[in-house]
Amino acid sequence: MKGMGPIPPGFDVSQQGRLAIGGYDCEELVAEARGTPLFVYDNNLVGAKIARFRHCMPAGVLLHYAVKANPYPPLLEWLCRYVDGFDVASVGELLALEKAGADVVAVSFAGPGKSNNELKVAIKDGATIHLESEGEARRALDIAGQLGKRPRLSVRVNPPFALKGAGMKMGGYASQFGVDHDRVPDLVRGIIDAGAEWRGLHLFAGSQCLDWTAIAETYRQALQLAGDISDAVGVHPTEVNLGGGLGIPYFEGDEEVDLDCLGRALGDQLADGPPALATTQIIVELGRWLVGEAGVYLTRIVDRTTSRGKTFLVTDGGLHHMLAASGNFGQLLRRNFPVAIASRFGEAATEEASIVGCLCTPLDMLADEVALPNADVGDLVAIFCAGAYGLSASPQAFLNQAHAQEMLI
Amino acid sequence: MKGMGPIPPGFDVSQQGRLAIGGYDCEELVAEARGTPLFVYDNNLVGAKIARFRHCMPAGVLLHYAVKANPYPPLLEWLCRYVDGFDVASVGELLALEKAGADVVAVSFAGPGKSNNELKVAIKDGATIHLESEGEARRALDIAGQLGKRPRLSVRVNPPFALKGAGMKMGGYASQFGVDHDRVPDLVRGIIDAGAEWRGLHLFAGSQCLDWTAIAETYRQALQLAGDISDAVGVHPTEVNLGGGLGIPYFEGDEEVDLDCLGRALGDQLADGPPALATTQIIVELGRWLVGEAGVYLTRIVDRTTSRGKTFLVTDGGLHHMLAASGNFGQLLRRNFPVAIASRFGEAATEEASIVGCLCTPLDMLADEVALPNADVGDLVAIFCAGAYGLSASPQAFLNQAHAQEMLI
Repeated sequence: MKGMGPIPPGFDVSQQGRLAIGGYDCEELVAEARGTPLFVYDNNLVGAKIARFRHCMPAGVLLHYAVKANPYPPLLEWLCRYVDGFDVASVGELLALEKAGADVVAVSFAGPGKSNNELKVAIKDGATIHLESEGEARRALDIAGQLGKRPRLSVRVNPPFALKGAGMKMGGYASQFGVDHDRVPDLVRGIIDAGAEWRGLHLFAGSQCLDWTAIAETYRQALQLAGDISDAVGVHPTEVNLGGGLGIPYFEGDEEVDLDCLGRALGDQLADGPPALATTQIIVELGRWLVGEAGVYLTRIVDRTTSRGKTFLVTDGGLHHMLAASGNFGQLLRRNFPVAIASRFGEAATEEASIVGCLCTPLDMLADEVALPNADVGDLVAIFCAGAYGLSASPQAFLNQAHAQEMLI
Repeated sequence: MKGMGPIPPGFDVSQQGRLAIGGYDCEELVAEARGTPLFVYDNNLVGAKIARFRHCMPAGVLLHYAVKANPYPPLLEWLCRYVDGFDVASVGELLALEKAGADVVAVSFAGPGKSNNELKVAIKDGATIHLESEGEARRALDIAGQLGKRPRLSVRVNPPFALKGAGMKMGGYASQFGVDHDRVPDLVRGIIDAGAEWRGLHLFAGSQCLDWTAIAETYRQALQLAGDISDAVGVHPTEVNLGGGLGIPYFEGDEEVDLDCLGRALGDQLADGPPALATTQIIVELGRWLVGEAGVYLTRIVDRTTSRGKTFLVTDGGLHHMLAASGNFGQLLRRNFPVAIASRFGEAATEEASIVGCLCTPLDMLADEVALPNADVGDLVAIFCAGAYGLSASPQAFLNQAHAQEMLI
């Protein structure tokens, strides 16, 4: 028997004894979508996260959504009403946001390898470009000159520190992300001298961290560094984007970030912050933390088989929709996301079984040797924590299997 | 400085000093496709592999293509003329093959979690279903009964042995793939008694192995086991599919499979094989080995930047097209595929640089600290060994970046 991550809060047992998502019985949702596999996102759970952020974080700290976490158009439309801005990683994401009705002025465009066409669209539409290199700055200024438009430019700083305990560290080492901090003042002066609107700085030290003290420490370092850079430039930035870093519990033993403590720590830091940032808008940019736990992947059991005494529940979904739950094509240490037999959500576990996908590879493992109520062909499986980096981050075309559908409730 | 895999044979320097694929200058191919990122597959290199297989393998051994390796339609159309059959892992792949003009009688359909609809289409169209479980056998027989059609059925055996040194082992452990070998005779008798056309057995012990002795040993074990099962059933199978297992050199130090030795070994085994298989067609099913080295992923450098003394060449492609080259979303030990500056293929290495993609994640690393000729914005990069498990096995929708194109020459 192996453990699994905790099932996120906000899910209930329906009157039929099945998983209820947003109060709806899972089989009713599947019927509405006309079948599985299906991603269901509950906007109330996203809303609860936004409310929690507003409650815990210091007044005035802006909340941006990182579109890369989940670009499902109805979700973007919904978020437009509740967050203060967005971060995009491509022009494709920018155009999706425009279609969803977002105010482009509150959109920042970060990411290495922006093409000239991407820079052109972003400048024309008025998004803030987070410059990743001196070369990108030169190209952006050239293109803005050709367009006769004053570009909004921020500089992404490659910080000398990383977020400790992060699932992914984004600072403290050589990388293509941003400009080494000691070269930033010269670059900022250059873009101001060139007549661009300098918006500020973007510092992102890592993601998927559950330890509020580590996140608070990187915020402290980021504010300090942003203050130092602004002093060196001699101009106060309009905004500083601290990145995000807040993780969600995926695996056994994981616990949620203590947002009360993090909010208090950030409040203290801002109250005692660098004078250069006294009038600066502080932005926290979140993706996974906002939407990850609000999503459930539903897939139906197609076969039940045994091998060498082990029971396998074979589903009509798999790693082509939920690559992260499978362990990303072969991590050395694969751990189980929270899962359940959705059609028997009210029942106690009675057996040990493994839930696998329909792909012809042993990597297509959705839950290995977990305790479940006895399930058979026709039962529905739920994979939780499927709201971020699920469908859009998976190899959907692999083996030409059936597509997954998505639904916002 | 880190090493990389060997550049596969068959590529030259063009008259312009650039990479030539199939004799065509890479920039001409990109112009024809109207831009990067672009996968180019050279059918002559696939043809050379097929010829080598025919030359080395014993006469009468059939060659099947595993569509999962690369389902690009023009490639399937081309292969229809040169291989003896196909293996598919979904009805989507089966229908793609039918569209390409394949003879469905020579198509086998393996893979867990086949839906009732998939079984229905496969039975109606006359493909051979490789049964993965007793439950699937019951469903297939029921559906065939409803259709009034005699189904072609093989049984996939979960063998008690694995392919040693394989990149992926597919036997010797509990799995959803096939039926444990000791339960196979009963299942085969059941489907014969039910009136189905029993085609034979499918044994697949692993993939991506470069050691011919290990592959030969699993072939020996597979033939022995197939003979024992056939003896227990008391009927000679029409065909036995030995799977594939042949890898290609991806990384530094890798060497190609010695096919001469493997062919001789298989010849000896068949000459002295189980009497029950004396008239059985032996099938070897290959995907990666046939097409992997025939593909090149071309992507253009969009930015050149430095960080802490390290040089990064940022391209317009990335892990959304070539996930395997990036290390599949975070393997502990990432190694470099063979790469080159395609637009300077004739030039000697003069610097150390890392080639990264345009995605906003440090996982988007295409080549880390390799020796390359000095390259800048506008140069073309080639990632070799991109013909198998490239585009179709990558998260193409991730971050809404530009699509890759494909071309068969």
